Amino acid sequence: MKYFAKIKYLGTGFHGFQVQPGQRTIQGELSSACLAAFGYEAKVTGCSRTDSGVHANEFCLTIECDKATVPPEKLPMALARFLPNDISLFSAEQCASDFHPRYNVKSKEYLYRIRSSRISDPFDCGRVWFLSYDFDEKMLSLMNEAAKYFIGTQDFAAFMSEGSGVQDTVRTIYYLNIEKNGDCIDIKISADGFLYNMVRIVVGTLVDVALSRIKPSEIASIIKSKDRSKAGITAPADGLYLNKVIY
Amino acid sequence: MKYFAKIKYLGTGFHGFQVQPGQRTIQGELSSACLAAFGYEAKVTGCSRTDSGVHANEFCLTIECDKATVPPEKLPMALARFLPNDISLFSAEQCASDFHPRYNVKSKEYLYRIRSSRISDPFDCGRVWFLSYDFDEKMLSLMNEAAKYFIGTQDFAAFMSEGSGVQDTVRTIYYLNIEKNGDCIDIKISADGFLYNMVRIVVGTLVDVALSRIKPSEIASIIKSKDRSKAGITAPADGLYLNKVIY
Repeated sequence: MKYFAKIKYLGTGFHGFQVQPGQRTIQGELSSACLAAFGYEAKVTGCSRTDSGVHANEFCLTIECDKATVPPEKLPMALARFLPNDISLFSAEQCASDFHPRYNVKSKEYLYRIRSSRISDPFDCGRVWFLSYDFDEKMLSLMNEAAKYFIGTQDFAAFMSEGSGVQDTVRTIYYLNIEKNGDCIDIKISADGFLYNMVRIVVGTLVDVALSRIKPSEIASIIKSKDRSKAGITAPADGLYLNKVIY
Repeated sequence: MKYFAKIKYLGTGFHGFQVQPGQRTIQGELSSACLAAFGYEAKVTGCSRTDSGVHANEFCLTIECDKATVPPEKLPMALARFLPNDISLFSAEQCASDFHPRYNVKSKEYLYRIRSSRISDPFDCGRVWFLSYDFDEKMLSLMNEAAKYFIGTQDFAAFMSEGSGVQDTVRTIYYLNIEKNGDCIDIKISADGFLYNMVRIVVGTLVDVALSRIKPSEIASIIKSKDRSKAGITAPADGLYLNKVIY
C-alpha cells in the first residue's frame, strides 16, 4: 500500500523535515508513529526538505508499507495518537505505486507572514516575522512593483544561500502576491521549485524595497548579477509556511 | 506619575510575572523596558503573580516614576521598542497615587482553553490543552452540572496546590461558564481571588467529570473534604489565560 497524505506542522520544534541523526525531525516523528500504529516500518517520503523552524499548512508525502492493515480514510485517526501535537496528518488516500511526492510536484506555494504593527501580538510569537513598521499603501505599492520583476523563468542564484550544492539555479516563479490582512502582510509565492532560502531572501529583499533601501526596478539587475550580496537579508524562518503543493 | 496599564503576554518563555533572580520574568522585562525608555528606574507592580507558562490577554499593573516625561497615551509606543515580542503593553492612563493594582481588584476572570479534537492543530501548541476526546453534548452537560457546585463563597482548600503559604482558603466564585467554540472548550471562571493553581485544578476536575470519573454531585463533597487528593489533576499551564481584571 502506498498512501498519499497531507500534514500540517509547527516547525519551531523541528530540525526540518528530513531525518538527521540525533535531531527531532518531521520525517523521524512520522516514521515512529507509523511503526507504532502499523507494528512494522513504513517508508515516509516528503515533497520537500523544508528548513529548521519553517512551518507547513499543507505538506504532502507518501507512506509505503508492505501490509495494508489500515484503510486510507482511517490513517489520520490511526496515526493521531502516536504523533506529537505539533504535527497533524489530516488527509490520506491511496496512490499509484510509481507516484513520487517530490519528483511529481508541478508547483509549490509558500506563504510568508509579516506582522507590521508597532505593538506586537504576543500570541503570534514564532508564527510571524515581527517588523515594527506601519506598512502604508506606498510601501505596499513599492513591494508590488518590485514583485513583477521576479515573475518568470530566471536564474535566481542571487536569491540562494550557500550550502545546498545545487548547480542549476534557474527556476520559474508563477506568481508573487502581496496582501495586507489586518496588521499582517501576507506574501504568497508560487514556483516550480525553490532554491535554498529563496523565499526568505525574496521576502528580505521586498522589505528592503518597502523601506526604500532598494528601488523596485533594481530587482532586475540584482537577479542578473547572480550575486547573493546584492539581495536583501534572509527573513527569519518564523514567518514561513509551505502552503500548497500542486501535482 | 503613576500609570495604570494593561498588557498581554505569551507565558511560555517566562517564569511567571514576579522578578526572580536569574529567571526571565514579565516584571523583569517591563522594568528593563521602563529603564531604557525613561532613562531612570520605575516601580512595576502587577495585579497578580501568575505562574510559569500562564498567559494573559489582559493583565493590569501600575508603573510609578518620579519624573513624568512620557504622557500616558504615548506609553505603549514608548515601551514597544524596548519590550520583547512576547509582551505588549496596549493601554495606559494616569491613576491615583493610592491606587494598588492588586489590593484594589474586585474580581478576576481566567479563561482556560481545551482543544478537544482527535487530530491536533499544530499552530495551537503551547496555547491550549490538547485532549484527544470529542467532547459531546453529554460531556458538556455533565461539566455544566458540576460547575454549579463551585459557585459561591466556599473553602477551596481541596483546589490548591501546596507551596503557597496561604492560610485563608475561602474564596468567592462568581461564575464558571463552559462553552464549546468549534473544536475548543472555553472555560471562564471569575472569583474575588484564586488560590495557587486553583483554576488548573478546577479544570482538571471538570475534565474528570466529563470523562465520568467523577459525578457532578461529588463536587460538593470534594470541596467539603478540603483534601487536594480528592480533586482532579492540575491541568497544564498552556491553556490558561488571565482574561479580565475588574476594579
